[in-house]
Parts: sequence; structure tokens; C-alpha cells
Amino acid sequence: MIKVAVVGASGYTGAELLRLLACHPEVEVVSITSRKEKGRLLKDVFPSLALAYPDLHFEDPEPKTLARKADLVFCCVPHRAAMAIVPDLLAAGVKVVDFSADFRLKDPATYERWYETKHTAPELLDEAVYGLPEIWREEIMEAHLVAGPGCYPTSVILPLHPLLSQGLIEREVIIDSKSGVSGAGRAAKLPLIFAEVNEAFRAYGLPGHRHIPEMEQELSFAAGSEVRVSFVPHLLPITRGILSTIYVFPRPGVSGDHLREALKKAYQGEPFVSVLPPGELPDVAHVRGTNQCRLAVVPDERTARVVIISVIDNLVKGAAGQALQCMNLMCGLKETMGLVGPALYP
Amino acid sequence: MIKVAVVGASGYTGAELLRLLACHPEVEVVSITSRKEKGRLLKDVFPSLALAYPDLHFEDPEPKTLARKADLVFCCVPHRAAMAIVPDLLAAGVKVVDFSADFRLKDPATYERWYETKHTAPELLDEAVYGLPEIWREEIMEAHLVAGPGCYPTSVILPLHPLLSQGLIEREVIIDSKSGVSGAGRAAKLPLIFAEVNEAFRAYGLPGHRHIPEMEQELSFAAGSEVRVSFVPHLLPITRGILSTIYVFPRPGVSGDHLREALKKAYQGEPFVSVLPPGELPDVAHVRGTNQCRLAVVPDERTARVVIISVIDNLVKGAAGQALQCMNLMCGLKETMGLVGPALYP
Amino acid sequence: MIKVAVVGASGYTGAELLRLLACHPEVEVVSITSRKEKGRLLKDVFPSLALAYPDLHFEDPEPKTLARKADLVFCCVPHRAAMAIVPDLLAAGVKVVDFSADFRLKDPATYERWYETKHTAPELLDEAVYGLPEIWREEIMEAHLVAGPGCYPTSVILPLHPLLSQGLIEREVIIDSKSGVSGAGRAAKLPLIFAEVNEAFRAYGLPGHRHIPEMEQELSFAAGSEVRVSFVPHLLPITRGILSTIYVFPRPGVSGDHLREALKKAYQGEPFVSVLPPGELPDVAHVRGTNQCRLAVVPDERTARVVIISVIDNLVKGAAGQALQCMNLMCGLKETMGLVGPALYP
Amino acid sequence: MIKVAVVGASGYTGAELLRLLACHPEVEVVSITSRKEKGRLLKDVFPSLALAYPDLHFEDPEPKTLARKADLVFCCVPHRAAMAIVPDLLAAGVKVVDFSADFRLKDPATYERWYETKHTAPELLDEAVYGLPEIWREEIMEAHLVAGPGCYPTSVILPLHPLLSQGLIEREVIIDSKSGVSGAGRAAKLPLIFAEVNEAFRAYGLPGHRHIPEMEQELSFAAGSEVRVSFVPHLLPITRGILSTIYVFPRPGVSGDHLREALKKAYQGEPFVSVLPPGELPDVAHVRGTNQCRLAVVPDERTARVVIISVIDNLVKGAAGQALQCMNLMCGLKETMGLVGPALYP
Repeated sequence: MIKVAVVGASGYTGAELLRLLACHPEVEVVSITSRKEKGRLLKDVFPSLALAYPDLHFEDPEPKTLARKADLVFCCVPHRAAMAIVPDLLAAGVKVVDFSADFRLKDPATYERWYETKHTAPELLDEAVYGLPEIWREEIMEAHLVAGPGCYPTSVILPLHPLLSQGLIEREVIIDSKSGVSGAGRAAKLPLIFAEVNEAFRAYGLPGHRHIPEMEQELSFAAGSEVRVSFVPHLLPITRGILSTIYVFPRPGVSGDHLREALKKAYQGEPFVSVLPPGELPDVAHVRGTNQCRLAVVPDERTARVVIISVIDNLVKGAAGQALQCMNLMCGLKETMGLVGPALYP
Repeated sequence: MIKVAVVGASGYTGAELLRLLACHPEVEVVSITSRKEKGRLLKDVFPSLALAYPDLHFEDPEPKTLARKADLVFCCVPHRAAMAIVPDLLAAGVKVVDFSADFRLKDPATYERWYETKHTAPELLDEAVYGLPEIWREEIMEAHLVAGPGCYPTSVILPLHPLLSQGLIEREVIIDSKSGVSGAGRAAKLPLIFAEVNEAFRAYGLPGHRHIPEMEQELSFAAGSEVRVSFVPHLLPITRGILSTIYVFPRPGVSGDHLREALKKAYQGEPFVSVLPPGELPDVAHVRGTNQCRLAVVPDERTARVVIISVIDNLVKGAAGQALQCMNLMCGLKETMGLVGPALYP
Repeated sequence: MIKVAVVGASGYTGAELLRLLACHPEVEVVSITSRKEKGRLLKDVFPSLALAYPDLHFEDPEPKTLARKADLVFCCVPHRAAMAIVPDLLAAGVKVVDFSADFRLKDPATYERWYETKHTAPELLDEAVYGLPEIWREEIMEAHLVAGPGCYPTSVILPLHPLLSQGLIEREVIIDSKSGVSGAGRAAKLPLIFAEVNEAFRAYGLPGHRHIPEMEQELSFAAGSEVRVSFVPHLLPITRGILSTIYVFPRPGVSGDHLREALKKAYQGEPFVSVLPPGELPDVAHVRGTNQCRLAVVPDERTARVVIISVIDNLVKGAAGQALQCMNLMCGLKETMGLVGPALYP
Repeated sequence: MIKVAVVGASGYTGAELLRLLACHPEVEVVSITSRKEKGRLLKDVFPSLALAYPDLHFEDPEPKTLARKADLVFCCVPHRAAMAIVPDLLAAGVKVVDFSADFRLKDPATYERWYETKHTAPELLDEAVYGLPEIWREEIMEAHLVAGPGCYPTSVILPLHPLLSQGLIEREVIIDSKSGVSGAGRAAKLPLIFAEVNEAFRAYGLPGHRHIPEMEQELSFAAGSEVRVSFVPHLLPITRGILSTIYVFPRPGVSGDHLREALKKAYQGEPFVSVLPPGELPDVAHVRGTNQCRLAVVPDERTARVVIISVIDNLVKGAAGQALQCMNLMCGLKETMGLVGPALYP
């Protein structure tokens, strides 16, 4: 049994991770922490987890204690807070899967420009592995520190990485993303209350959402040269799910069908990525609660552009599920363990 | 033109009142106040009101200034805050329609027991009129201070008052109410965020919701003796609307059809109360954005009970619309002025 | 491995059953049927099930073929259709868990009065067992034909059965239920389209919903004499979940706390029924996707009534999960097998 | 008083038109028709309109009768059905505002290619005026036949027309649109039922939605040469509202601020189009129930692209409101009459 701890378990990604861990046959949750909820029982904060964890309660996040109890720590605190604790966890000898942005960007200057704060642990950026297993599987298996990707970047990099690395599309891409509200976290903010989100729809975070540098880093790696993306996120009045509509310009002589085949080949055998046949379009409802990413490629002969549509559950493949997938790899377990149930539909 | 001011206009009831006032042909809004939003333009807080009030901005609530500018003040601040300002407004010679609970209960001891605070203006309780025009129309026309009813009580008193005053039902009633989220106000509270309300449904505030004494006061007046209600409110994952399902026990020899006829007769000619024919059931969607109350009476021969169902829009007939109806009466205008548009459906 | 078939698998209860069966370690799905979708792949109708059942396709419901392939058949067709096929399935030697109303009522005359159709297999009513394991566990273990309870009755009988059988409450109960839309099935009907349900709320099916005789049958068994219920169902603008608010009248000398203790004792050790501590109220969101029923008992000292609130997921404990629980019992498996994951929250 | 009739009044656009007409001071509704609902009272189909039209009932659509009673007919039937009746209405001497696609496209061959049906009244295409008053106001004032624009095209043409006609952007535009479900009409179709739309989000109608030729016709008129658009529509789980996110490529030397200023100038004085100041983004909730279009221009310096976001209520500015605006112009009334109330928010 792998012993794991969850730091910052009082948010939605933490709760989702605990939901998934409850069904994982090789994991034992030995500690959960939250400064805010310290001392409370998990089941009083999340009644949905009452039967799975009847006695678990929130503790203070003390790195040495966590390292003594756990083999691996999932760190679900926000950026800044993550880089304040992760170095101590690693120093104490425990593996870490971090959910924040703090270890995703290789260049600390880029981090500091987009996140407007000094990076306090730049020495870890080299060893941190970007936790997208379909791209960095080998590296994740050897990693001590995995930086879980952002939810939007997961929905964007999976479809674009193979196409850019094979030089099939131009490096200018336009990404129109729509996310459910749980992506904004479990926080009492006025723009998130029901009456402000329900029956509403809006773009936000323009022009420069913080997930952009992460997308551009990974896509530039893929392309071998700099990629610039136009990215517009929108807030959907649903709880879970991201759908990204991506407009690409195929290189001369490359058809939309060619792009679809390239994606099918790239993801053949991947348990969590499906490329839909022509005529079928993905729906966020079809991946609800799962670690799946579903992709469709739609050629538009009239304009010579191609539209790629991807869907994920932002809390699963976009956060907790992908982190668990990484943990499986880091711990030598079957990659799909604990991640195989079908979507909750309807 | 009647000159009105709105104190505490940064909440949902204030915004709804301003929406209605924008279409009222005999009203000019001369001032809006909000301590929290002081100095900001209304349109920056509520873009939906940008065209109607391009230049209006939030001011500090200063009673003398308000009384100088306005003929009537709508007071949309919470209980406690209301009784702190209403006496000064009245003393300065302006009429007041108050939205809070502070002047609804005739007995200050009852107020203090349910609201757990001392009443600081008990001398006004006698002159305050309960602002349910279908019951207290004459008194409202003469009033200087009207206490707008709570949203739940409006949905309950309208159907029950005539039946109790005519002695047609027993004094034990069971009220199962369901309200949209806007009833909880425009406040950044964790239980109100979208991900906690969407796809969820729960009762709350048990066993003693603060709207109970108000219902019992008015229903006891109607019955001529004490009425005790069982009242369970629930939170609906919709923005607007209250539906109350009320279980009553007819007096011997009284049928459900008799009750329906009594209601039809009681509300004949009333512009805002409709009693549906047998077989038709009301939906909150049919009154969205309107000052309407729709009632159905359903006899259940198997159990000799009768079910009464009422629907209102909690922000209109349950708050701002009813207040405007009272204003029309207090100012000698046609009672329906500014309140006649159909519901927004779908 | 238990071999099962699902007749009428193109509806929501069928799809939900297949979702649950996909995670059941001791079951193999050998056939699914649907007249309407005959020949189509399951994954083309329900993309959410694509990975779990990549090759399964809908066949014609032929009893002998089904009995040859399967040990047990789940029958998810509507009433009337069920009694047309179940006798042949049983005659062919296969066990059946039926989801319809056709075998729930012991008295064919009651069935015929409420369902307005002749019962064509009354000879099976005696041997059919009402599939509520918490009440009829022993009988289910021996049964060849189990009649899965309706969703509303499940939410009502679980809390009331122990209280009536112990004589703790009067036999007059008032049940105010609210159900998500999936309870109405996967059918293209105008009142079910999004624009008619969203931001709407209404009662329906008054005064005589067909789940009433089923509730009264089981509650009368419990009480040992006839029980009559007032029952009002409402349509919630959510996909899954039933919440029933039940108003009961304790017998003299019985307190609300007494009722709560009686329920706790009755369901001690039951894996799928939880009685919440005082002060906690259940939410349908806390059981989403699970076989759980959560109950709260709220005494109201002012009125000497007690409010009991129950929540279930109508598609799971109200249909497919409970059927699977019965299957486990009928096949000698652990009762909770395949039914233990936490709720999908948020 | 203008006497109007509404043909095909049993759908959502018809109902919305009747809602707006109920508040129009210079209009009398003399007849409504619907083959399907013939003989029924309007209030039995749309209870929300009960008070406004207590006695109106659906009749058969008989052109000569309609022309005798009405000065102007709104035709809310689908394409094909429209061109079957509009010629007779015009021949009978009545003005027509048509909601369908039948008279929007100037070239019958384009119509026949996209709608896959023969155009049976091509002789009317020349005299039909595209009913977007901000572009074709003078022509609408003189028109006998106005073809109301599609909802998506309205949200797209308003922001792009001035920019293309002034040569400020390239003719390649990418349009990512999201629409509420009411745009799909009041029809009992499986993909529209609540459980299929709620908590779901998907693109649809790819690659060739029928609103494309209409956009391209009007934008090509503006540009003076052929414009080709990439257009991806998505289905939002809300009832009302369209948000279009439009990616444009400014001509060399043109900045995003320049584009915003050009739009502000183009729509200065227009009562129904607002260009938001920098930093403000539109939300469909801010125009709910209104004839408003709100536009934002967001420069993205990193990519030299500009994002334009527009919102409308698909049933109002996207259908019934715009039709009413046209009627006002055709009948010599003030253009804003009956269209001035603020949005229903929240």
C-alpha cells in the first residue's frame, strides 16, 4: 500500500482527489491538512466523503510529520503557498505531486512576470517534471517532484502537441475555452455565487490568463520553436468540464483528415485519450467524473482551417485524476489504477 | 412625478426595484445609497441598469439629505440597519417603505425572541402597516411607514388568509416552501456559490426560520385566534421564484372545491392574484419578473386533505414589486402602475 | 462471474445500471436489448460508456436467447411491457430484477385501478419480492423475481417503515417530494425540454401519483393496518436526486429525538442508510451517483410535529443501484459489491 | 393603433413577440395562428401571457383573413413554411416581418444549396430587406417585406460590419458562438431534453451551420468583396443568450483601440448597441429580455490579434425584439417603442 497525504484538502481538487483515492486499491490516505479547517472532521466539510473516510480530520501541514507518515504528498494549495512547503517536503524525503503553477514553468523569469511574485525555489524547476503523462511518461516515472498541469493547458496541449511536433500545423493557434465553475475553486467570491453564474455566460481574465505561458512552453517544446497562442477562457454555468475549441491552420498539403489520423496514431493505446470518428463531437457530459480526454477534428473545407475540439473534466483529467495518474507512474503501479469508472451520465 | 430614493441599493432587491422603477411613468429616482459601494456608478455594479440610469451613483445614506430630495424612501437594508435609519427618515418628513423585518411584527418581544436583538424603535410598530395590499390596502393608503412582507410569508398569507378568516380550515397548517437563491441576497457566502447550489437541493434554517412569526401574526389576525404553522424552507437551484406547497385540513363539511371558490371570490378583481382552474398547476416560471401570485387548490379525496400551491417571484411580489405596489397606494397612483408586463418566459 | 442481460437498456436507468455494472468485479454483461435502438452500438447511444463496453450492441429482446446467455436479467422496460416479457424469462429459467411497477403491488385490483390496465401475469405477484433490501433482505436472497421499488417510494419507505412498525407515529403522513428530471426518463416530451424545466419549478401528477399505492402497501404492512399518505411530487431543475420532506405526528409521549434514535437503531450496520446527527441536513448533492440514502429527523417543538428528510439518487438507490444490490443478494455476493464509490461532489 | 397578427405563435419566438407586444402602446394584436394549437386559448399554451391576452386563441393561418384584420403580419413559422404563406400575405396587401431564413439570402442558388430545398418565391428576394436596422434602417422604413436576421448573424454582423466596411480588418474572421437552448425552438427533441443539456456543453452543426451564408452575404456587402468565416456554434445550458467570441486580424497599422473607437463611432446614438469601455466584458445575463447588443473589443498585444465579444438575447435582439424594432420603423413609430425595459437581472 502506498501511503499518501493531501496538503490543502479543503478545496475542490483536494476533495476530488480523496474521492478517487477512496476507490484506489493500493493507496492509504494517512493525513490530510488544511490551515482553515484544522481540527474538523473531513466528513463535516465534505459529507459526500463520510462513508469513505469516517474518522479522517484536517491537520496542520507540517512537512516533517507528513514525510514520516507518507510516501507521497499531493499538494493542493495555491501558487506561492506551494513553493513555501514543497522544498521542505522534498528535503524530508517524500515524493510530491503539486497541483499549483509554482513548478510548471521552467523559466523563473516567466513565472515572475505572469504571477507577479518572486519564485522562492527556482532550484527545483529543473528537476520538476510537467505532469502530463501522455507527453512526459518516462520522466514522470523517475520524478520526485511532478507539477500537475493546469486544467486549460491539459485540454489544449493534448490535441496540439502531436500536431506541432510533427510540423503538421502552423504555430499560430486560436484557443476558445469554456470551463465549469469548479475550476475557480471553493471560495466565497461574489462573482461565483449562484445568482451571478446561473443563466449567465461571459469571458474573463482577458487578455492574459495565467495558463498561457504554460501552454506556450509545452507547445514550443513540441514545435521546436516559439509558439504564440490566442487564448480566451469563458465561464460556463455548469459545475464540471472544460471544452476547448481550437482553430488551427494546417501546413500546405495537410488535410483535416490527415490531422485526425495523426492524433489517432499518437494516442493509440493511450487509456485516457480518445479521438472521435468523423461526424462525432465531444460533450463535457461524456467525461464527467472521469480522467478521459475526448478529441474531435473537424475540417472546414470552405476556409481551409481545421477545428479541434477537446473535452475533459477539469477536476479529474484537469487536476486530481491526472495527479493520480502521475502517482501511479511514480510508484510503479498500473497507470489506470483507480481511474477506470465510466462517466456519471446523465 | 414622485421623487424616490433607494437606501441600500446594492443588493438584489434594490436592483430589482430600480429595474421596475425604470419603467414607472410617474417616478423619478433621485438618490441611491450604499455604504459599501459609495462613490461608484450604479452601472458599474449593475450593468443591466446602464441605459436606464447612466449617471446615477451610490451615495452615503444621510437621512436629512434624503428627506430633502425625496418624497418617499425605499429602505432595502437588512434588519437592525433598518431600524437605525427609518426613525430619522420619518422624523425628517419622508414616507418610507421598508424591506426588512424590523417593522413587520407588532410585538417587540416576539421580534427580540426571533431576531435575537433589542428593538430600538418599538414606538413605530403601531403605526407601521404590514405591506400586503390585498389584505391591508386601506391602511397602506394612509401609511407613512410600510413594512414590506417577507417573501415566504407573501406566498403563504395570500392563500391562507381568506380561508382562515372565513373559518373554512383548521388552524394547523403545514407549509413546505422552496425558494430560488436570490432570496439569500447578493452576498459572497460559501453555501451560495454556484458549485454548492447547482445540482443540489436541501432544506435549511430548521426548525425555526425567522419568517414564521410573521406568518403566524398575520394568520392569527385572520383566524381571530392563534395559528401555529409547520414551515420548512428549501433552497432551489434557480435564481428567482418561490413555490409553497401548503397542506390544510378543511373544517367538516368543507370541500376542496369550496376552498377554491372562496379564494376566487376573495381575490376577484385583484390585479396580482390569480386562482387557477381545476387541473392547472402553477409554475414559478410563469411569474418570473412579475408581481403576480398564482394559486391552485387541489383536493385529495383519499385523505380529506387539501393541497394549496402558490407561486411568486421572490424579488418582485416577494419584495420590490410589492413595495412598488405599496408606493403606488401611498402616493395615490394606480396600484398596478409599472407592474403590468408579462413574465419573462421561457 | 455472474452473466447478466439488460432488457430495455436505452433509457437512463439502463444506462445507469451499465455504468455500475462496469465497475462490478463479478459481473459480465452478455446482452443488452432495445427495440428502438436495435442494431446500434451502445457507445453510439451512450458515449459515456464507450470505453467500458466498446463492442456491445443492442439486440432484440428474445426471452429464450436471453435465458440461454444470462443467469439474471434486469428488465428496464416500462410497466405493461414488463409483464409481457417477464413471465417468459422466468419460465426459461432465468432470474429477473424488474424495474417497472408491474410486480410491485400484491393486489392485482389495486394495480388495475392505478395503472388503468389489466394485469396479465397476476400469478406472479405472490412470488415477486419487493426489492427494498433493508426491509425484505431474506426474501430477496431466495427470490427469482424481484420488483424494484419506485424512486419516490424508496425515499419514503426507508424512513417511515421502522417508525410505523414500532408504532411510534400516527398513520397519517404528509410527503412532499422533489425529484430531478432524470426520473421522467429519456423521452422526447415537450414538458421535459430544457427551456421548460430550467429556472422552473412545479408540482405535477396531482392528486394521485402512481407511486402512492406502493407506498401505502409497504407502509400498511409495516403498521399492521391501513396507512393513507398525502403525496405531492415536484419536478426539480436538476438531473439527479430526490428529496422527500415528510411531516409525521409522533404518538403521545414520543419525541423527535426518540424517532431519530429508532431510525439509527433500525439502520445500524446498514451500508446504504445513514441517519444524520442533530443539526445536520441532507442534500441530494451528497448522494449523487451513489446507492446511499441519508436521513435527518428534525423535531419541531412549537408544533409537536416532526419533519423527516430523506435524500437518494433516483437513478441509483431509486433504481439501478438498488437493483444491483438485489442482484448481489440473489446471487450470493457481498451486498455492497460494485456500490461503494463516494458521491460525485461537487 | 397598429393592428398586427402573429403567424406561428406557438413557438418561443412567437411567445416572446407577444410578451413584447403586450407592453407596446401603439399595437393591437388582432390574430394569432398555429396549425398545431388551433382552437386553444393562448393562455393555456403560455400561462405567462394569461393576463395580457385573456381571450386570444389560436386560429388557422388564412392569408386573406389575416390581411383583412391586420396592418402587419409577423411570420414566425420555419423556413419553407414561410415562403409558402408570405407571397399570399403580401399579395393581400399586408406588410410582413418574417422570422425565417426564406427571404434573407439574395441569391436563390445559395439558399437552395444551404437549405437543400427549392426556393418557391425567388421573385420576392429583391424587395425583401434584411431586417438589421443598424445597417439597413432606411430600407426597412420603406419595406413591405422584412427578413429578420438569424440570431447568430445578428451577434456577428453588428460588430464586424463597420470594421469591414472601413477596411480595418482582414476578411478572414473566426467566430466562436455559444447560444442558449431557446434558440433551438419549442420542440420535443431528445437532444433538447433537460437531462441531455443540463451540465453539458458541446459544439454542434459542424462544419456548415446554415447561418453562415447569411453572415457572409452581409459581411461581403460591407467589405465590398468576398468574406469567408469560420463559424462554430455551441449549445449553452442556459435558456436565453448568445455570446460570440470573434477573432479578427487588424490591417497593418490598426490597433485594437482603433477598432474599439471605430465601433463606438459607428454606433454612437444607436439605442440598442453599446460598446463597452476597456476592461469591461459583456455577459449574456446583462441583456436578458432586452433588445440590447453589448460589444467589447480586447486587443491582444502578444499575438497582434483582437478579440471582439458580443452578447444579445437570442429571442429578443436575435428574433422578436429586432422584428418589433423593424415594425416600428415600417409603421413610422419611434424605433425604441416597446423595447426599453432593463434586463431581468439576476
